[in-house]
Amino acid sequence: MTRFQGSTGSVFIGPFRETPQSLWEVPLVSSPGKISSSGVSFCLSCVFLLLLRCVPGAQGVWPMPQRVVQSEVRYPLSPHDFTFQYGKESAVQQGCAVLDVAFKRYFSLTFTGYANVRTGTEKHKVSPYGGHRFGTAPPTGLVVTVKEPGCDGYPDLDSKENYNLTVADGPGVLIADSVWGALRGLETFSQLVYQDDDNTYYVNKTEVQDYPRFQYRGLLLDTSRHYLPLSAILKTLDAMAYSKFNVFHWHIVDDPSFPYQSPTFPELSNKGAYHPQTHIYTVTDVKRVIEHARLRGIRVVPEFDTPGHTQSWGKGQLGLLTPCYKGSVPSGSFGPVNPALNSSYQFMSTLFKEVSVVFPDSYIHLGGDEVDFTCWQSNPDIQIFMAKMGFGTDYRKLESYYIEKCPRTRSCMCGRVIQHSTSMR
Amino acid sequence: MTRFQGSTGSVFIGPFRETPQSLWEVPLVSSPGKISSSGVSFCLSCVFLLLLRCVPGAQGVWPMPQRVVQSEVRYPLSPHDFTFQYGKESAVQQGCAVLDVAFKRYFSLTFTGYANVRTGTEKHKVSPYGGHRFGTAPPTGLVVTVKEPGCDGYPDLDSKENYNLTVADGPGVLIADSVWGALRGLETFSQLVYQDDDNTYYVNKTEVQDYPRFQYRGLLLDTSRHYLPLSAILKTLDAMAYSKFNVFHWHIVDDPSFPYQSPTFPELSNKGAYHPQTHIYTVTDVKRVIEHARLRGIRVVPEFDTPGHTQSWGKGQLGLLTPCYKGSVPSGSFGPVNPALNSSYQFMSTLFKEVSVVFPDSYIHLGGDEVDFTCWQSNPDIQIFMAKMGFGTDYRKLESYYIEKCPRTRSCMCGRVIQHSTSMR
Repeated sequence: MTRFQGSTGSVFIGPFRETPQSLWEVPLVSSPGKISSSGVSFCLSCVFLLLLRCVPGAQGVWPMPQRVVQSEVRYPLSPHDFTFQYGKESAVQQGCAVLDVAFKRYFSLTFTGYANVRTGTEKHKVSPYGGHRFGTAPPTGLVVTVKEPGCDGYPDLDSKENYNLTVADGPGVLIADSVWGALRGLETFSQLVYQDDDNTYYVNKTEVQDYPRFQYRGLLLDTSRHYLPLSAILKTLDAMAYSKFNVFHWHIVDDPSFPYQSPTFPELSNKGAYHPQTHIYTVTDVKRVIEHARLRGIRVVPEFDTPGHTQSWGKGQLGLLTPCYKGSVPSGSFGPVNPALNSSYQFMSTLFKEVSVVFPDSYIHLGGDEVDFTCWQSNPDIQIFMAKMGFGTDYRKLESYYIEKCPRTRSCMCGRVIQHSTSMR
Repeated sequence: MTRFQGSTGSVFIGPFRETPQSLWEVPLVSSPGKISSSGVSFCLSCVFLLLLRCVPGAQGVWPMPQRVVQSEVRYPLSPHDFTFQYGKESAVQQGCAVLDVAFKRYFSLTFTGYANVRTGTEKHKVSPYGGHRFGTAPPTGLVVTVKEPGCDGYPDLDSKENYNLTVADGPGVLIADSVWGALRGLETFSQLVYQDDDNTYYVNKTEVQDYPRFQYRGLLLDTSRHYLPLSAILKTLDAMAYSKFNVFHWHIVDDPSFPYQSPTFPELSNKGAYHPQTHIYTVTDVKRVIEHARLRGIRVVPEFDTPGHTQSWGKGQLGLLTPCYKGSVPSGSFGPVNPALNSSYQFMSTLFKEVSVVFPDSYIHLGGDEVDFTCWQSNPDIQIFMAKMGFGTDYRKLESYYIEKCPRTRSCMCGRVIQHSTSMR
């Protein structure tokens, strides 16, 4: 059941929809026998809407798959008899957590509004279907076959998300290389199902071949400037899955607050969060977010930006930030992480060792952007360090020194970091 | 903040309240200087209500702790400044999942209705407190000290749940042997806090020494006769924690339906659940229930009742149940598990091997109650087996044979089973 439009099928209002040319689709939309795309990008939205209007009963899938062939033939679906099943040849079977719970979740998403049944005796209360305009053998299920084993890991940049989906006479067929592709196919299937005025659920005869246009389809949430309750993050992950996004870039801490509760450095959130009890993410919270995301094929890439954007860090870790000076006396305010002290690197090393255990993704975003040099320039100890290192007055060299010294420390996870491009100058 | 009564403090309506003499309290309630209990059990409720009426501002804690000393001195609490903290001497510190998330949870439960703050700048908007009727040093937190390490395990029958709680001048003090006792103390503390007409939160000067009267305080949910959504189970666990219950007896399957989705035997829920997709508990669901319970100090004891109460099992595991006969021909209906077939024991062995991995508690409830002999009596193969075994016509011997053969198989977890007393005849 689509979550972005009514069953009349011409309006798209997805939580993350931006343009009809999505992160997932290719520029040329092809629906053989219906529309020949001009390939002119500014007309894509017309083509897209036309496509929806030209195929009676056909439902818009968002993002548009690479290839969709839809027919006017439609099948009624009986929710009570319908099941998602593992194909006999599938490399993953029942017990695969990702798909076991996806089958359950997508049942609800496919048959939105279908009332819960209480007993098995209600099974026969569903009205029998009929009518010559329908396909001859309505699907009583979707058989999901995954070619490669693997259910317990995490999605990554190399995950295969391609899938083929066929709805025709007999059970629907979904084939994917990995469980992550199967999740994308389930999303597409759920969007193909619609309800007519008689409240009967229908799906049209459809063939879909699909794969992502971009391997990294991310959404960023900033939980430092505005704390978001766990439930809001989980709902956002749900919405991301509806649009086939696959990376939650968790901008978890920054200048305004430090809501990540570090077991190693509890004072960071005790002093740096908006409130040490209510406005924090415990490790248990973080694990819940990561598992919720994993079950939807979404990676969680945390961002711990340094040496700038760290005002909140300084509250719980005294001596970490550079004291700014006004003339010859400290002004009482602080600048970026103090790059002249070994203790700064020791702290970073220990913190990121913990972070790399808590967050299993292959990448951690280390920021590195927008370092303001004025505080460093004001501090006499920094000036001495600059002279000692032979950096002259080029504070970009000091910044580079910090950037290079931190991530290249093994415990700072050399090789699995992301930084803002501004730090690469 | 109590969840069972208004701040005037005379009515108890707890989700699981039965009598004022609870599972947790001792018969004699002692509140020195206020009430001398008569020890007559029928008057306990009067004593209990009197206690509440005689101590102005004192809040009822449910279940009644072993010993409570309350004073008229009360302290205003400022939610914005209040925190739960680990004591310096505590054997568990930040990073202990059970308490990290409990601190967060109990903040909300203690300060019910306290609006979320958005920025740290609102910190100083809280009105200053004053007045000579108050204690001199309002608690700005509760310091929790746990004597014994251990945060990653599960509660069990031997868990220590005792705790001492002191609210006086300065920070409150909660001392417990284990994290499970600390949870009970946090619950008590949250119930001691109340709001007055001016919406200010208060807690009276109080001393509590507490330990459970019964080590097993269970609640049973039957999810076979009526499927309960996961959210309903999780909410029930919340409510259990409010009343300091510590065992969720999950009567998960029975005659009417088999909602447990077994990875080893998927047909059990595919055929035996009310619906194979909507009315099931995946292993992921079960794990979520178990972790939700663990974080509240609650054990999850699953019940898989055999050889009776298994009608739903037969749908997905053909040959498991005894075919009933009408005269010399099968009637089409089925009775208890067929105790004459080795395949029955092999199936049970494999299923319970899986169940013992999925459910970490030391105990699994194997039922064994209410075995109806009429079907066994009707079946000619059972009669042959009875003769072969020398059981005569005593079907209780056949039942005992099944009961003894199944649980004493090592994989059926000899020594960690519970059975209904009716099976012990």
